[in-house]
Amino acid sequence: MAPSSSRPLRQRHHPSPLLILVVSVSVLLTPLPISATADGLPELGGGDGLYREILRDETVLRLKELGKISDGEGYLERTFLSPASIRATAVIISWMKDAGLTTWVDQMGNIHGRFEPTNSTKEALLIGSHMDTVVDAGMYDGSLGIICAISALKVLKVTGKLQRLSRPVEVIAFSDEEGVRFQTTFLGSAAVAGTLPESILQVSDKSGTTVQDVLKMNSFEATSTAISQAKYNPESVGSYVEVHLEQGPVLEALRYPLGVVKGIAGQTRLKVIVDGSQGHAGTVPMKLRRDPMVAAAELVVTLERLCKEPNKLLTYDEECNCFTEESLAGLVCTVGELNTWPSASNVIPGQVNFTVDIRAMDDQARETIVTSFSRLVLQKCDDRLVDCKVEHKHSAAATHCDQELTSQLKRAARSTVSAMPGRTVAAAGETPVLMSGAGHDAMAMAWLTKIGMLFVRCRGGISHSPEECVMDDDVWAAGLALFTFIDQNVLAVSEEEQEAGQNAVAES
Amino acid sequence: MAPSSSRPLRQRHHPSPLLILVVSVSVLLTPLPISATADGLPELGGGDGLYREILRDETVLRLKELGKISDGEGYLERTFLSPASIRATAVIISWMKDAGLTTWVDQMGNIHGRFEPTNSTKEALLIGSHMDTVVDAGMYDGSLGIICAISALKVLKVTGKLQRLSRPVEVIAFSDEEGVRFQTTFLGSAAVAGTLPESILQVSDKSGTTVQDVLKMNSFEATSTAISQAKYNPESVGSYVEVHLEQGPVLEALRYPLGVVKGIAGQTRLKVIVDGSQGHAGTVPMKLRRDPMVAAAELVVTLERLCKEPNKLLTYDEECNCFTEESLAGLVCTVGELNTWPSASNVIPGQVNFTVDIRAMDDQARETIVTSFSRLVLQKCDDRLVDCKVEHKHSAAATHCDQELTSQLKRAARSTVSAMPGRTVAAAGETPVLMSGAGHDAMAMAWLTKIGMLFVRCRGGISHSPEECVMDDDVWAAGLALFTFIDQNVLAVSEEEQEAGQNAVAES
Repeated sequence: MAPSSSRPLRQRHHPSPLLILVVSVSVLLTPLPISATADGLPELGGGDGLYREILRDETVLRLKELGKISDGEGYLERTFLSPASIRATAVIISWMKDAGLTTWVDQMGNIHGRFEPTNSTKEALLIGSHMDTVVDAGMYDGSLGIICAISALKVLKVTGKLQRLSRPVEVIAFSDEEGVRFQTTFLGSAAVAGTLPESILQVSDKSGTTVQDVLKMNSFEATSTAISQAKYNPESVGSYVEVHLEQGPVLEALRYPLGVVKGIAGQTRLKVIVDGSQGHAGTVPMKLRRDPMVAAAELVVTLERLCKEPNKLLTYDEECNCFTEESLAGLVCTVGELNTWPSASNVIPGQVNFTVDIRAMDDQARETIVTSFSRLVLQKCDDRLVDCKVEHKHSAAATHCDQELTSQLKRAARSTVSAMPGRTVAAAGETPVLMSGAGHDAMAMAWLTKIGMLFVRCRGGISHSPEECVMDDDVWAAGLALFTFIDQNVLAVSEEEQEAGQNAVAES
Repeated sequence: MAPSSSRPLRQRHHPSPLLILVVSVSVLLTPLPISATADGLPELGGGDGLYREILRDETVLRLKELGKISDGEGYLERTFLSPASIRATAVIISWMKDAGLTTWVDQMGNIHGRFEPTNSTKEALLIGSHMDTVVDAGMYDGSLGIICAISALKVLKVTGKLQRLSRPVEVIAFSDEEGVRFQTTFLGSAAVAGTLPESILQVSDKSGTTVQDVLKMNSFEATSTAISQAKYNPESVGSYVEVHLEQGPVLEALRYPLGVVKGIAGQTRLKVIVDGSQGHAGTVPMKLRRDPMVAAAELVVTLERLCKEPNKLLTYDEECNCFTEESLAGLVCTVGELNTWPSASNVIPGQVNFTVDIRAMDDQARETIVTSFSRLVLQKCDDRLVDCKVEHKHSAAATHCDQELTSQLKRAARSTVSAMPGRTVAAAGETPVLMSGAGHDAMAMAWLTKIGMLFVRCRGGISHSPEECVMDDDVWAAGLALFTFIDQNVLAVSEEEQEAGQNAVAES
């Protein structure tokens, strides 16, 4: 067991000056639609133990409020340390304080809200998700995990259970998971896990602003020493749990609101740059062109074919290496962004570049697809006399969740779903166990500690889109399951309960 | 013959207030590297009639100067009424004044510099090209025609021939030919030709700014009535001549600095919009995707194939309609711009759109390709369950140059090339006659009057690129040919010459 002093409390003494300022600005605290009892604690749903007012109504209101804090007009976009992220930080801190947590912002912009039981020397339970979003995002991705965790702890507070925690519990809102701004994921959680390379400070966004620049602009220290202070001592952490919407169609098909995650798919991100001969659209004969646009288009089509029918495009060596039906399961390839230069309708482009995202549960299968695609790029570019470069931007192996944590989450989900009002309860089956095609902060946190994940059903499996939707009752179920998980596994057993337990053993 | 009052002189009394301001700001007048003679006229290359100082040295200096006036940093971009265009306007006006011309800016931002012989009632000779550029442009496209024309008129001025013009001669720097900003070409020359539709005021650029907005911002009246004042009465105009770099490889291959143009290819511009299902790159199985990126890529590849081997993709009807080897000659198809939304590497795009530029000398062949491509778009989009729309943005029929004008330009080019110092002279062949794959202001001006065009050799046929290059001696040849054309065809015959002519006839 780690000594108390090894807990990563340093950061509390180094909050960013800017963030102190932001937090001191009046923040929008959603009014809680519950009346107070004589002892100042709110009335909680008539004592049914479901805490609807906090876990459903207030959580949903807060999701909507956070979903409106955007850098885009008419759509949701909140990237690493953007102006909207700074505004969101102030709001999240106010909610953490409202749940009775001590808050601070670390040197990578992650927001921490922690409850430390008196004299506890045990490893902390961390619960988190990310506050950044993709461009034109839905309001649940990331935010759901943060707000559900804050709500679950608020229920612990109002029920007086916070004081009875057997170990520290901490909510973390990570500053970057999507990697939209710097084309590299997990800036926030990798800093906490201690796996962020020093070179990250020099990575630039599209406008040429580096990570270091943006940290400095927001009054962070922006040195590798400062960032290393965000790292947690593994001995001070017991486990990491994350609630996240499924972003896929499985739970909806099973008619079940919650699921637990067995593992997260590995992922590779590439950038392909195609250089050709820029020229006038009217005067260069088709036969004399070195057109990077058509070459890039051909590569996009090739990537799709490689993912859908890999065996038709692999060389004998590649194929022999690893491919089975099972190892290809869950293989997905995406080109999400393609840029042309100089981008005018009457100019044959001089350069075209595009992003490639490849994911699979089987790491070897993914590696084979990456190798094979890189080979096909060079081959097709040679045929067209254009110059191509494949840059590896990010790579993460598949991650497996901790079996014990997963069992605990599964039990908590099961008892939650059983207890919920009729229309949210599915057939009385087991809690589904899923694989995750999407990457999550849990992947980065797996370098630090054991991880467990709870998935929440979403409409049509749609995510990374304003169409993203989680039913209010499913938001409620997620918060209740998280509360139940803490209640069942992290509370110190009271003397009466201990006694009752001993009696039960004696009787059996 | 048009009465003098029908000449379009109204605009002189309505210059834009902003432009008065801009012009009053001190402008960079390139110092002319020639010494003055006793009567104040410059010494002209030792009386060899080649006017090297004006037609080569000063013209090249001015091309470089104009090429530096850009909205982009480190590359040339000057679109319709952009800040750089306004700066360029002031400089061009100063050069026109230097050549002895009366200047004004019309209600679409075109710059006019005119010399009106005393008591002339004849139709004007217009000489023009465009001052706007593509993005990341070369410095010759458009500018070469404007500056060569000003230089040729300057030679007329310094040799005292300006006063002897038999008809008005006017240089026009058109405000928009490339159509980069509003995706619709010839804003400038179409206004002068009187073919600009009233609806043009409502067309928007990418930022949502309309043509009307940008005109107002620059203190133009921005009404359809005001724009119609830019229209020239066809009876007041005798012909339009344009000098332009070839933008293709033919003259270089023939080792000849100048060529005349027989006609300009017809052109169609389309915008294809592909709508699919936006979603998370990690969670939507390949089989369930409606991915507009892959659909668009497939269409880009299809377009290329259709242009290269049309007979393989046409239906029986389409093929029977018109296709011969000859009708397909010069057919080129280009996708210059492709946009993804929301454009993040981990999101399957919700929408992708791209531009299509199709050109051919044979209008029926071009129409067939457009029809066939539109059919293939719908067919392939149906297969992929994405929604596609093909918008027609611009269409122009092939244009034929006036035979008499072309013969005159051909003679002028021939005598110029014969007179130039040895190393620029090609084999003593005829002046080459070319077709133009690129559109030019002459296409729009053909609605108003007879047109003729002179092409200038460029390196590697490269244009719409910073690599664009015309040799200084070829710039010289172009200006001298234009001067010679005016000298041979637009000067009033003096009494002595008339007498000499009559004697020659009497002797023969």
